[in-house]
Amino acid sequence: MSRAYNFCAGPATLPESVLRQARDEMLDWRGTGMSVMEMSHRSDEFVQIAETAEKDLRELAGVSDDYAVLFMQGGASSQFSTIPLNLLGEKGSADYVNTGIWSKKAIAEASRYGKVNVVASSEDSGFTTIPDQSSWQTSADAAYLHYTPNETIGGLEFGFIPDSPGAPLVADMSSSMLSRPVDVSRFGVIYAGAQKNIGPSGLVVVIIRKDLLGKARQETPTMMNYQVIADNGSMYNTPATYSWYLAGLVFKWLKEQGGVKAMGEINLRKARKLYDFIDTNEFYANPIDPRFRSWMNVPFTLADDALNGEFLKGANARGLLNLAGHRSVGGMRASIYNAMPEAGVDALIDYMTEFAKERG
Amino acid sequence: MSRAYNFCAGPATLPESVLRQARDEMLDWRGTGMSVMEMSHRSDEFVQIAETAEKDLRELAGVSDDYAVLFMQGGASSQFSTIPLNLLGEKGSADYVNTGIWSKKAIAEASRYGKVNVVASSEDSGFTTIPDQSSWQTSADAAYLHYTPNETIGGLEFGFIPDSPGAPLVADMSSSMLSRPVDVSRFGVIYAGAQKNIGPSGLVVVIIRKDLLGKARQETPTMMNYQVIADNGSMYNTPATYSWYLAGLVFKWLKEQGGVKAMGEINLRKARKLYDFIDTNEFYANPIDPRFRSWMNVPFTLADDALNGEFLKGANARGLLNLAGHRSVGGMRASIYNAMPEAGVDALIDYMTEFAKERG
Repeated sequence: MSRAYNFCAGPATLPESVLRQARDEMLDWRGTGMSVMEMSHRSDEFVQIAETAEKDLRELAGVSDDYAVLFMQGGASSQFSTIPLNLLGEKGSADYVNTGIWSKKAIAEASRYGKVNVVASSEDSGFTTIPDQSSWQTSADAAYLHYTPNETIGGLEFGFIPDSPGAPLVADMSSSMLSRPVDVSRFGVIYAGAQKNIGPSGLVVVIIRKDLLGKARQETPTMMNYQVIADNGSMYNTPATYSWYLAGLVFKWLKEQGGVKAMGEINLRKARKLYDFIDTNEFYANPIDPRFRSWMNVPFTLADDALNGEFLKGANARGLLNLAGHRSVGGMRASIYNAMPEAGVDALIDYMTEFAKERG
Repeated sequence: MSRAYNFCAGPATLPESVLRQARDEMLDWRGTGMSVMEMSHRSDEFVQIAETAEKDLRELAGVSDDYAVLFMQGGASSQFSTIPLNLLGEKGSADYVNTGIWSKKAIAEASRYGKVNVVASSEDSGFTTIPDQSSWQTSADAAYLHYTPNETIGGLEFGFIPDSPGAPLVADMSSSMLSRPVDVSRFGVIYAGAQKNIGPSGLVVVIIRKDLLGKARQETPTMMNYQVIADNGSMYNTPATYSWYLAGLVFKWLKEQGGVKAMGEINLRKARKLYDFIDTNEFYANPIDPRFRSWMNVPFTLADDALNGEFLKGANARGLLNLAGHRSVGGMRASIYNAMPEAGVDALIDYMTEFAKERG
């Protein structure tokens, strides 16, 4: 098969030009006689790769020197413990917003280390909306306020950055990182598992305001201590070098596309196109409050669930892959991250149109 | 440059055929229309890749069903906390053998979680030997006995498996894993960062006797809980899929070479050849007790340290790379893991011979 349109929620499709470059450099990176994955992480060559990736990410996301940028091992799930271990401090409690499955996982893990105040939840609505911020019951003593800007499974996205005058704002941006411009200066910590908009899985990028470093609890594993990782330029141990390199290639590609501003425009266009189609075709439905529909993950259902298997089979035959919804919710989901070309969305809509005509 | 001989201690050289296959499959894994790094970790294709890798590793290392095999994120440094968090249990203390820099790091991290008894140390000798086991002061109440079969920096290797009748034996095999036959049934836990003999960095393989699961302390981060990782087939979160795939390619390559028995014979021949040369050429020296010289990492010094720079420059010019010793010890070090061909060792000896003739 030639390259398919892969709508997987993560690990997710990567820009074809990035994969081509990785392929071409696999056995010999720029005349060094070795693959990037064979290089010492302390070699001049790899340090250059690593520093360039950080510089490009800072430029793309607009990260000032007030923040450290960390390239850690693991993913959002490991950060679910890392965050409370590093930030709960003496206060011992934190505020969390519950807007879906990933919020819940973050809450469950943080609850093992301290008091978690769920300041707002949209569980009653089946996580189809985001409670108005005026109703949030924030606490006076919270060490931080955690939320999930984009719920990958539910397809629910904050279109705004919450106000958090009292506590640093902490965001799991795994599935929305670099998908549109975001004012990083509003955040205490941003973290993002790489396998959606950044690169391969096993890498997690953390952007942390430097005044939040150095507060880790005594029992924090050294490899989870933000201060240690920052002090060592993310090389306290051997980092995930090849993933870091691939992330750097993705950052270069993003810059070539015009950065996150241009990417945001493309992503909005892709998402609108798909949602508009779903809303105007009776055969399909999306349950999410239109104000908070995700630009990245578009869940939808068919008018008849019994046709799901046939829908997926036909999609696969056309090279439209991984459209099944998450096993916990069913239905369909199209993840349309940065690397999904607009042509992929067009091809999906064409197929959905035809399927609805024939089987609707 | 064509492919160099890369003597880096880790990340380290990989078999060229593995890199070629990874290159050829980069954009389209076997007609799926996507790269392995773009696949859902729960897809049939990736599950097949993952399961085959585990099966091949079990076959290569002789791992019985009494053991779980885990593919975790991180490396040995993250295991330094994971081990005590999971195994200290009610006993709260463990025995450690101190034979070098990596032992010391493991000891330092474990000491943060409980009582560490250093049962033997070769620090007085500058870590050039291993104390006779009859002198070890093991404790009656140790939850486990930890040692480092091969010290990557010092170039010191246990040629034997210590007896540990009272406590499960735990080994950091990062730099010796799969380099020769080892009786896994003698161990409670074996762990190995991938970036020497297994694959790219960011992945750590853990082989754990199943009766040692389920003993994690309350504060253990979920992503570090062996029981959770085992119960979820190393997919509690999104694993480092691409690294896992590459590890699988390395395992296939090892099987083609004849497995660890054949590899052990080759490694012994490579190591003997290099040590014999060093011992018979007055210009070079290796300080390690000949009974405990590493088959994987061969440190050596020149008769005149002032020639180090020139030696390295000449080596680089011939495509013999990364021979500088670790920054903490200086001198030279040739890491000759499984993937270093015997021809690489021959080329190194040729160069060393010539250099000694000209400058010695």
